[in-house]
Amino acid sequence: MTKLADRISRLGTETAFAVSAEAAAWASQGNKVYPFHLGDLNLPTPSAVVEASFKAIKEGKTGYCPNVGIPQLRSVLAEDINASHDTGYTMENVALQPGGKPTIAKFIMTLMNPGDEVLYPNPGYPIYESQIGFHGGKAVPYTYVEGKDNFEFNIESLEQNITPSTRLLVLNDLQNPMGAECSPQELEKVAELVLKHDLYVLCDEAYFDIRYEGKSRSLVSLPGMAERCVLLYTFSKKFAMTGWRLGATIGPKEIIDVVAKLNVNDESCPNHFIQYGAIAGLTGDQTEVKQILRTLKERRDTAVDILNSIEGVHCFRPNATFYLFPNVTGLMRKKGLTTYESFRKAALTEIGVSFCTRLHFGRPLTSETNFYIRLAYSGIDVADIQEGLGKLKAWAES
Amino acid sequence: MTKLADRISRLGTETAFAVSAEAAAWASQGNKVYPFHLGDLNLPTPSAVVEASFKAIKEGKTGYCPNVGIPQLRSVLAEDINASHDTGYTMENVALQPGGKPTIAKFIMTLMNPGDEVLYPNPGYPIYESQIGFHGGKAVPYTYVEGKDNFEFNIESLEQNITPSTRLLVLNDLQNPMGAECSPQELEKVAELVLKHDLYVLCDEAYFDIRYEGKSRSLVSLPGMAERCVLLYTFSKKFAMTGWRLGATIGPKEIIDVVAKLNVNDESCPNHFIQYGAIAGLTGDQTEVKQILRTLKERRDTAVDILNSIEGVHCFRPNATFYLFPNVTGLMRKKGLTTYESFRKAALTEIGVSFCTRLHFGRPLTSETNFYIRLAYSGIDVADIQEGLGKLKAWAES
Repeated sequence: MTKLADRISRLGTETAFAVSAEAAAWASQGNKVYPFHLGDLNLPTPSAVVEASFKAIKEGKTGYCPNVGIPQLRSVLAEDINASHDTGYTMENVALQPGGKPTIAKFIMTLMNPGDEVLYPNPGYPIYESQIGFHGGKAVPYTYVEGKDNFEFNIESLEQNITPSTRLLVLNDLQNPMGAECSPQELEKVAELVLKHDLYVLCDEAYFDIRYEGKSRSLVSLPGMAERCVLLYTFSKKFAMTGWRLGATIGPKEIIDVVAKLNVNDESCPNHFIQYGAIAGLTGDQTEVKQILRTLKERRDTAVDILNSIEGVHCFRPNATFYLFPNVTGLMRKKGLTTYESFRKAALTEIGVSFCTRLHFGRPLTSETNFYIRLAYSGIDVADIQEGLGKLKAWAES
Repeated sequence: MTKLADRISRLGTETAFAVSAEAAAWASQGNKVYPFHLGDLNLPTPSAVVEASFKAIKEGKTGYCPNVGIPQLRSVLAEDINASHDTGYTMENVALQPGGKPTIAKFIMTLMNPGDEVLYPNPGYPIYESQIGFHGGKAVPYTYVEGKDNFEFNIESLEQNITPSTRLLVLNDLQNPMGAECSPQELEKVAELVLKHDLYVLCDEAYFDIRYEGKSRSLVSLPGMAERCVLLYTFSKKFAMTGWRLGATIGPKEIIDVVAKLNVNDESCPNHFIQYGAIAGLTGDQTEVKQILRTLKERRDTAVDILNSIEGVHCFRPNATFYLFPNVTGLMRKKGLTTYESFRKAALTEIGVSFCTRLHFGRPLTSETNFYIRLAYSGIDVADIQEGLGKLKAWAES
């Protein structure tokens, strides 16, 4: 038996992968499965991205590129972010990465010492808590509350948890799994706390461009925040490129210079030729990109309408992300199911509807009395949404 | 001024990138540069790899894949390794990575505690020392000596440095920068020390298949070693895929399971469609792969012959890797240059010949009295090798 390093005992994971495995096993027995558990897209990557990538291969862009990516993409991405964020980034503020996710560990390794406290959202993406603990920090949760029209940032739960040891804040606004977003006033209050307590912020903006109405906002647009925010950018969602693995860390040059050194140490560089595809995606015709959003919006509306027609289910209609986080407390009570796992497994094996629950997004807080599940509509077509959630409705009424 | 995490002060880098930047700056002023500093290939990726990757995109392999890669490639790679290594690996022993390099950090994070001692080669690839120190270990060098026909593994320098705190060994056999390799007897002695001192080994086999004569050997083929060795595999060199970023960690299932969890945390998964290209590379027609080796061998022989015709230069002809590590002590003396950097810069600015020196491969040990430079012939054609090293010869004689 190999003696593993002590830090491995602090490493978390995404338990959602176990849900995928269970769904696949159930399907392999000949059962129809409605995959609402996947945060992946079943839509093709825009052709401009595909063609420019392939052209780059043919032109020999198959050797190493600079550790932080090719200058052209760094510049184009800086300009793209400046246009939506009202920032003044140049290529020196951009380090390309093999996906959006590498930014999480690199932010933490660059700025957090063992023992430092880091505020993170719960419910939230589970990798924040995992990486904080893995690298020796203390993960301190803040939360959201169910409001009238959407989940609301609970600024008190953030402020109350700030101590002299608090060093970093992870802000995932627009939020997975809740689709929540801060109001302008809440962002201003966050900025105030960041300055008051000398914090640095990881702004995980993976879903910034997955937006159906209105305009996304970023903490970095507020005065004094450009010096303290590091943005997690990804090409995965907007361009249906999850499996291509390309993203970026964007922030103050001083931090990006360290991240560049981490790139040298950890991966050498991101894939070379895909970066030409990404340039084409950002600068080319946006018809296919807009079509992705239209498709997702239709799915959202289909799912929300059916969910809200089910007794014992209440679901908001978030303007961003491709997730729904319905309150299913009444439905679970009606079905006589008292635990998340019994409810999830019953839905899978009785009607083939597969989803994650609140449990897959961090340890439930002691204050929680309601039950929530997370449905992703990025990997399932409208017809299957109708059929699957129709079965959920019939099951609820049976 | 941002307060960085303490660990950042222990992070090293590849100083060879500064050489690349200097060479590029010199070339941009209109000077001809002979690029011997690059460990990159200026050869096209085999067409089977390109075509299978593109076909996979067209077939929709653009979403996430399993964290450790697709099962088919894991199986094919396990079989490929078994054939050359006499091992019994299955797909469960293989975790695909975005390049060869990620295996270094993942091996260290999985097995090394802060304070543990790790033996690493010096001269050697500088990322070993960097990652050991970054994650809180103590990097302890062992070395090689200039023998009659090649550089020889200095087993005494390894054995002498083993203490009760020694936990890991990094073995880069076939070696960058020296092209050195262990004899069967030396590998047996290493295996003996590994068992005696309860060590785990990172076998960096990036150059295992870059071989012109004879057959590469691996420590993992020896009795008891499969349980203790983790192989760094890369598609970069054999298939001229440096910029594609695909490699693998191969080892005991218990360790690969942890590496899989690190994949979840650090990158989600490697690029999806490129893995189909890699399958085609491993299983398809090998004509283009063999042509890459023939091209490299011709370059090696051209370079070695010219180098050995220069007074004050002595160069071995390694059977593997695409590096040469000539002893230039006499030449430096003749030119009146007493430091590595003065010699390197003089060669660049006086004759356009760009190379790395021993300094780019770790801190010189106190026992060293000779001077060595490293020439890579992977990124320069025969005609430019002749012209560039011809200029070096004329410069030496001037």
